[in-house]
Amino acid sequence: MAQYQRPDVPPMKDLTTENITDNVQAINSNCPDARLRFLLDRLVNHLHDFARETRLSITEWEATIKFLVDVGKISTDVRQEFVLLSDVLGLSLLVDAIDHPKLQNATEGTVLGPFHTTDAHHVAHGHQISNDADGEPLLAICTVKDTHGMPISHVAVDVWETDSKGFYDVQYADRGDKPDGRAIVESDENGVIFFNAIVPVPYPIPNDGPVGKLLEKLKRHCYRPSHMHFMLKKPGYDRLITALYLRGDPFETSDAVFGVKESLIVDLARVGSTEGLAEKYNVSPDTKLLTYDFILITEEEARQAREEAAQRVADKQGGKLKVVGGLLVPSDS
Amino acid sequence: MAQYQRPDVPPMKDLTTENITDNVQAINSNCPDARLRFLLDRLVNHLHDFARETRLSITEWEATIKFLVDVGKISTDVRQEFVLLSDVLGLSLLVDAIDHPKLQNATEGTVLGPFHTTDAHHVAHGHQISNDADGEPLLAICTVKDTHGMPISHVAVDVWETDSKGFYDVQYADRGDKPDGRAIVESDENGVIFFNAIVPVPYPIPNDGPVGKLLEKLKRHCYRPSHMHFMLKKPGYDRLITALYLRGDPFETSDAVFGVKESLIVDLARVGSTEGLAEKYNVSPDTKLLTYDFILITEEEARQAREEAAQRVADKQGGKLKVVGGLLVPSDS
Repeated sequence: MAQYQRPDVPPMKDLTTENITDNVQAINSNCPDARLRFLLDRLVNHLHDFARETRLSITEWEATIKFLVDVGKISTDVRQEFVLLSDVLGLSLLVDAIDHPKLQNATEGTVLGPFHTTDAHHVAHGHQISNDADGEPLLAICTVKDTHGMPISHVAVDVWETDSKGFYDVQYADRGDKPDGRAIVESDENGVIFFNAIVPVPYPIPNDGPVGKLLEKLKRHCYRPSHMHFMLKKPGYDRLITALYLRGDPFETSDAVFGVKESLIVDLARVGSTEGLAEKYNVSPDTKLLTYDFILITEEEARQAREEAAQRVADKQGGKLKVVGGLLVPSDS
Repeated sequence: MAQYQRPDVPPMKDLTTENITDNVQAINSNCPDARLRFLLDRLVNHLHDFARETRLSITEWEATIKFLVDVGKISTDVRQEFVLLSDVLGLSLLVDAIDHPKLQNATEGTVLGPFHTTDAHHVAHGHQISNDADGEPLLAICTVKDTHGMPISHVAVDVWETDSKGFYDVQYADRGDKPDGRAIVESDENGVIFFNAIVPVPYPIPNDGPVGKLLEKLKRHCYRPSHMHFMLKKPGYDRLITALYLRGDPFETSDAVFGVKESLIVDLARVGSTEGLAEKYNVSPDTKLLTYDFILITEEEARQAREEAAQRVADKQGGKLKVVGGLLVPSDS
C-alpha cells in the first residue's frame, strides 16, 4: 500500500449512533468554502437527528432511496419532479419567503412552480396570450410601481397560466416550440401592462409520478387553486416571482403547494362594470377583469433586507455565525 | 367551479416563514398511516428548520434541486448514487446501527455499500471467488456461531470484494452475467466456512458523478480502506450485513463512507505460520490468512433489542410517542 498516503484528516473509527455526527462534521471540516461547510454541518445534523428521532428502519431507508431515485428519473426540463417535491413539503414557499423578506408595501412573492419556461414570446399590449377558445375571456390591466408609488417602465412581465382544462402547454406532448398561455409583456412609461388571457381554473399538480403517489398515501388532494403566474424583471430591481389567486376558489385554503397569500388574492370584476372600458380595450363587456398593482423593491433594498434578516438569525446564535455577502457562515471562517 | 368540492382539510393561507411548518403538518395530518405521518412530521420540521437556520438562498435551493436530479439520473441497478450520497453523509452507517442495536457479543454490522448484487453463485468450500490473477492470494476461514457460542450450520454467507485494482465486477462494462469477486458459501455443521479470495485493497468510491464532485468541493478524499464485505443469512436469524477491515490501512481512520468499527478490524496472518494448514487447505504457505468468528443474533433477539431501543426513545419524549411493531409512532394514533 506504499502508493497511498495517509490523509491529513481528523481520525475516526468505531462509529456509533451517538458519535457518528461529530465524526462526519470533522471530516467535512476541511472544506475551504465556509458557506458550503455551514450548509453541510446543518444538513448532517438534521439528517442524523431525523434518523435517530424516528429510528428510521433499513426498510424505510431503502424505500426512501428508491423514492428519490424515481423522483430524479422522472424529472426533465419540462417536468420538475424534485421542484414539485419541494413544493408539496412547503420548502419552496419557505425558501422564497426567506430570500425575499416582506418589505414595507412591496408585493409578496410566492412559489415559482415547475411550469415556467424561458421561451415565452414578447408580445404587445392587448395581445391574447391563450389560444384556448374554450377559456373564459379575461382582460388583465396591471401597474408596476416602486415602493414610493412611482411607476416603473420597461419591466419585463412574464405571465403564464394553464388552459381551460387546467394544463400548461408543456404538459402536451405536441407542444413543440410553440408556447401557449404564456407571454412577456413590457410595462409602458406609466408602469402599465395590459393583455388578454383566460380566467384561471383550479388544476391538479402532476399526480402520476412518485410525488403524486406520496400525496395519495398522505390522503392529500393534489389541487392548486385558480391562479396566474407572474415574474417581473428589470435591471436594478429585485426579481419578483409571484402569482395572483382568485378569491373563493375551493382550494383557496388548501393549496397543494402552499402558494396562497392573502395579499395575492384578487376579486375579478366585469369589464362592462366600468364605463368605457370595453370600448377602450376592444373587448366584450362580459369579459372578466383582473387588476393589480405590483410593487417592486430595488436590488439594493432587497440586499439590505436580506442582510438584516440574516444578521437577526446570527444575533440569535450568539456569536457562532456571521453574515458575509448576505449569507450566514460560521464566525471562525 | 361547481365540479370541485372544497376539501375537508384544516384551512391555511397567508403563509409566512414562521407558520408554514405548522400548516404543512396540519395538511399532512389526515394521513391514516401513523408511522408515515410521524416520519413526514419530523422530516418537514427538520427540512424547514434547516432552511430557516441557514437562510437557504434560492440560488442554493436551485443548485440542490439540480444536484438531486443528477444523483437520480446517474443511478442504475449497478450504480447506486443515492446510496453513495447516504453513505458519504454518514446516514447509511447510522441507519444500520439504529436497525441493528449492538447486542452482547454479537458481530457488529456496517454499511452495505452500493456494490452488492443478487446474482452471486453458491460455491463449495475452498472455491477461489476471484478470477484476478494479479491479486495476492488469501485464504479465509471463518465460523458462524450464536450468542451462546453454538455453531450455526446452513448460513448463506454472501461475500464480495474488489479485484486487485480496486474495482468491483459490476464496474466493468463487459461484466455481463458473470459475477467475479463474489460468491455465496454455506456454513457446515461446525459453523465453518472457508474459501479462497485475494487480499483486499483500498479503492476510491465512484467519483465521476455528482457525489464525487461534492466530496471534491468538501476537500474529502474518496477512498475506502481495504475490506471484504459479508452478508450472513439464515431463517430465524437477524440478517447480518458487515465487512472486515485490514488493520493498518492508510484510510483506516478516514473511511469515505464511515464503515470502520474497531471490532471489525482484522490482522492477516500467513497460512504457513500454522503447522499443517497449507497442506490441509491445499494452498501455498505464503498465502495470507483471514480468520474471523461471526456471531449472529436470532430474529427474536433483534426484535426485542429494537423494541427496547425504540421504547427508550419514546420514554425520553415523555408520552408523545409509543412503539408499535418495533417502530415509533405518535401516541394519539
